[in-house]
Amino acid sequence: MRKVIALTLLSVAAFCATLAAQSGALQYTNDGQMVLPKDYRQWVFLSAGLGMTYKADAAPNANPPFENVFVNPKAYQEFLKTGVWPDKTVLLLEVRASESRVSINKNGRVQSNILHIEGHVKDHAKGGWAFYGFKDGAQKGTLFPKTADCYSCHGQNGAVDTTFVQFYPTLVDPAKKAGSFKETGH
Amino acid sequence: MRKVIALTLLSVAAFCATLAAQSGALQYTNDGQMVLPKDYRQWVFLSAGLGMTYKADAAPNANPPFENVFVNPKAYQEFLKTGVWPDKTVLLLEVRASESRVSINKNGRVQSNILHIEGHVKDHAKGGWAFYGFKDGAQKGTLFPKTADCYSCHGQNGAVDTTFVQFYPTLVDPAKKAGSFKETGH
Repeated sequence: MRKVIALTLLSVAAFCATLAAQSGALQYTNDGQMVLPKDYRQWVFLSAGLGMTYKADAAPNANPPFENVFVNPKAYQEFLKTGVWPDKTVLLLEVRASESRVSINKNGRVQSNILHIEGHVKDHAKGGWAFYGFKDGAQKGTLFPKTADCYSCHGQNGAVDTTFVQFYPTLVDPAKKAGSFKETGH
Repeated sequence: MRKVIALTLLSVAAFCATLAAQSGALQYTNDGQMVLPKDYRQWVFLSAGLGMTYKADAAPNANPPFENVFVNPKAYQEFLKTGVWPDKTVLLLEVRASESRVSINKNGRVQSNILHIEGHVKDHAKGGWAFYGFKDGAQKGTLFPKTADCYSCHGQNGAVDTTFVQFYPTLVDPAKKAGSFKETGH
């Protein structure tokens, strides 16, 4: 009986460890780079845009990229309940090339290879939100300096706490209900 | 001590029940309609296309829809390992309208409201793969008759087992490795 209990508790511990590893726990290297979460493609998808630009005079793009945004499941579930992002929230922007004539597809655009990835993480221990860039398949992301445009743009235009919730359909209502949604316009 | 063990086991049971509820277990109504899984937006995202059409002479669409595809996590994890879909796999196609001038966005397209949802499910007990349509926010999906175009098109052109794995970047390699990938062309 004792053996059974011990084994049960061991299984539970192992199971919980697996869950913790999949929960998107934020990790850094010793020199402060962000570690790309291995399982982010199994995180919660927030939305995808195609060829989005924030500048009115941007040149037309014949091969516009897709931008998929994912968030760690724990942060998503908390946002649904509270309308705010908890500490250690990790948002990942996965930028992919687009193609048209793939397999039987004739028009419109489909997603192909990854161009680059960016992380946007909320970490109180490091002074709040920060952006990290993962280039050319890198598994470690380099911190964008706080003077980079992304910080000021997200600060001014993010609907909720420097994040672009205005583009994430399932999160708009929870944020509005919680009173955390800021209207942003042209 | 016994109380502690009983409580621990109860917690584990409750936890497992929660996981089972989130695993995408396929459910039908008494009259054979498919029940829309409440948490499918927390399932695994496979890809998003914009304005995809399989007909060469389709008219240009000024407001092309986005098509997001989700799969239940258990089926995804099994596909990564084996390159084949297990029984009770549920794929959900969520079709959303697109817009351009939302918030600070100036060009390209962003996702807005849901237009309709379709389910594609593998259920050995019901004779294999079937399609279900969820219209106008319906929580129950109606079976498409087996004579509908979707069956013949997916049968002929689906890269793996009547599914369009050719459009799901993270699944192409596992399928090719397993030898389950069928090339499809123009």
